Amino acid sequence: MPENFELLAADLHSKARRGRLSTAHGVIETPAFIPVGTQGSVKGVSPRELRELDAQIILGNTYHLFVRPGLDVIKHFGGLHKFVNWDGPILTDSGGYQIFSLAKLRKITENGVEFQNHVDGARAFISPEIAMEIQRALGSDIVMALDECVPYPCEYDYAAQSAEMTTRWAKRCKQWTKENAERSTSNAQRPTSETDSINSQLSTLNQLLFGIVQGATFENLRKASAQQIVELDFDGYAIGGVSVGEPEEEMMRAVESAEPFLPGDKPRYAMGLGTPPQLLEMIGRGMDMFDCVLPTRLARNGTAFAAAGTLNLKNAEFILDKNPIEENCACPACREFSRGYIRHLIKAEEILGLRLITLHNLHFYLNLMNGVRTEIERGTFDQFRKAFVAEYKTRDAVTVE
Amino acid sequence: MPENFELLAADLHSKARRGRLSTAHGVIETPAFIPVGTQGSVKGVSPRELRELDAQIILGNTYHLFVRPGLDVIKHFGGLHKFVNWDGPILTDSGGYQIFSLAKLRKITENGVEFQNHVDGARAFISPEIAMEIQRALGSDIVMALDECVPYPCEYDYAAQSAEMTTRWAKRCKQWTKENAERSTSNAQRPTSETDSINSQLSTLNQLLFGIVQGATFENLRKASAQQIVELDFDGYAIGGVSVGEPEEEMMRAVESAEPFLPGDKPRYAMGLGTPPQLLEMIGRGMDMFDCVLPTRLARNGTAFAAAGTLNLKNAEFILDKNPIEENCACPACREFSRGYIRHLIKAEEILGLRLITLHNLHFYLNLMNGVRTEIERGTFDQFRKAFVAEYKTRDAVTVE
Repeated sequence: MPENFELLAADLHSKARRGRLSTAHGVIETPAFIPVGTQGSVKGVSPRELRELDAQIILGNTYHLFVRPGLDVIKHFGGLHKFVNWDGPILTDSGGYQIFSLAKLRKITENGVEFQNHVDGARAFISPEIAMEIQRALGSDIVMALDECVPYPCEYDYAAQSAEMTTRWAKRCKQWTKENAERSTSNAQRPTSETDSINSQLSTLNQLLFGIVQGATFENLRKASAQQIVELDFDGYAIGGVSVGEPEEEMMRAVESAEPFLPGDKPRYAMGLGTPPQLLEMIGRGMDMFDCVLPTRLARNGTAFAAAGTLNLKNAEFILDKNPIEENCACPACREFSRGYIRHLIKAEEILGLRLITLHNLHFYLNLMNGVRTEIERGTFDQFRKAFVAEYKTRDAVTVE
Repeated sequence: MPENFELLAADLHSKARRGRLSTAHGVIETPAFIPVGTQGSVKGVSPRELRELDAQIILGNTYHLFVRPGLDVIKHFGGLHKFVNWDGPILTDSGGYQIFSLAKLRKITENGVEFQNHVDGARAFISPEIAMEIQRALGSDIVMALDECVPYPCEYDYAAQSAEMTTRWAKRCKQWTKENAERSTSNAQRPTSETDSINSQLSTLNQLLFGIVQGATFENLRKASAQQIVELDFDGYAIGGVSVGEPEEEMMRAVESAEPFLPGDKPRYAMGLGTPPQLLEMIGRGMDMFDCVLPTRLARNGTAFAAAGTLNLKNAEFILDKNPIEENCACPACREFSRGYIRHLIKAEEILGLRLITLHNLHFYLNLMNGVRTEIERGTFDQFRKAFVAEYKTRDAVTVE
């Protein structure tokens, strides 16, 4: 069986890597940014627009989709790709993060998590096996193991026990996937009149399963978690439990503590972050994949990303500004519209305003990763990183989900 | 000077007309539907999408634009076309309707209307002359005279006095336009380094001015108003004060009462309506142009238009529905997305949901007008109208602004 991940180049001055990850719905050039489509839609943009932005992969939140519209609906439509009309790669999380941040009345046991969802309060239970079943039904190309994401700050003892349980859960996810590989194959060969159904099942044959490293902000726990998870042999490795409110240095240390124990020939995914400079720092620390709500969420508040830092288009300084959000930007917003007009739209609460900033922000993130890939190939990534970080100013307080 | 309006065909079985209206920014084939871009944006859609939907003209609301972002801003950007990045024809209303429906503490005198705007409560005054000045600054292709739009129901005496004042205001609008035609010309010839500025001023040279017939629901007032307004010789004639809450028969009668007194060689514009069957009935009564917020407003509530009537996509019956909103519809939503997915988006309050229904609804209205134009040319409009109205069922209560 050919390897899913190919390393194309490595930076000499940092741990940055240039790679290529093959999935059932296409290839992802890394480092890669994954736009977040929480409820089956990247907020404010259409699949056609995502394709035009050269998005390589999108993320779906298992918890949200499980709660609404529910698995039966998505199965009926032949899986998440067909439901949302996106035929590129999809990564789904395990649902764990949202159960711990959104759901009510959580009860965590060795077996799994019982919770009440935040939409209609219905009770549900997710175990590692159920998380795998759900993501199998969604038909995502990259599936995440169920983990417990502890909050920040977190007591050492709790973090240690939790990380160990996450390892045991990861093992059960891996086990389920092994046991159910065959079932999936036989399903695919089962005669059926619906082409939809065949395609959906064929794609599930090639789901990649990523394990998640936890351990909060404790170096030895991060190391132990990485070693245990790697021991289980996943298709890729994620660093979870970062960008949960900890200081940026803690976030960097969490990644630095785990990274040396991750195999070089598998993709590494830093979950749920971050600002543009954070992404570059993470890439310099050996991370390959990122997802973050910042570009879409801040857009809805009128904040745009630019090489010089964020700008809040609500500010009065932009009222008469005929310039695009960013000079020489090739995004659909900058090609056609002025800051002044976009400011008016945001102030008047016109949907087009947040649409245009969302397009710009996603383009900014995707284009930044595109640039990073070239810089790594050229061996100039580390200079690029330093120059970018020095230039970039965060003018408005930004918080990640 | 060539005529702006050309009659291409007339229906033998109704008063329907097929025409062509030339404006400074392009030709409008009539009957035509005008998408409403209240605050400088047709809610939820981009100019590019409007072009792809074959929208021929959009409407801007003078009152809203005057209040926010304000005239100075739009002038600075070289007029409304440049500000909103729409190079096709734009029609602006006079602001009267919104002053009477949205603004606070109105004081109407012969001279004009004093009011407090609904956004920041600032006081302002609009006279017929100021309404003309504002629309000149906006640079719209079709300019509406300032009128008083009385509510429904309305006392006969008030309606009579109001309609007569509307005539006197119309005369002042016409007078202002005459007196300021020259100034506009000399502006256009003034040497200037900014191409923007030249283009903007060239376009104002050819602003068409439409008069508005009032008279509430009283036949003799509608007749008198039409005669007085026509006497003043405008480029086109609008029926105002309809679709303000009156029963549909009253709306039809108001149009029927005025129409015989409108010249056949000028375009007729029924303002602020209506449902698809109402449009067909109005076309059969000799109307050529329409604007209405229904397709965009109802979309935001999950209601889609179809030949068989409206459907509310929030309904549970659509949860598993793999069909497009309407079979064989060529709109961007129906080409790519299912009712079930769009329902999910609307229930989950995802912006893409209202975007898709808005695109569908605008396409429905624009495509209906396109079909009507062909039917008139073929001489089959009246059969088409009857069949369409018989087939169409309004399943949900709909109200026009």
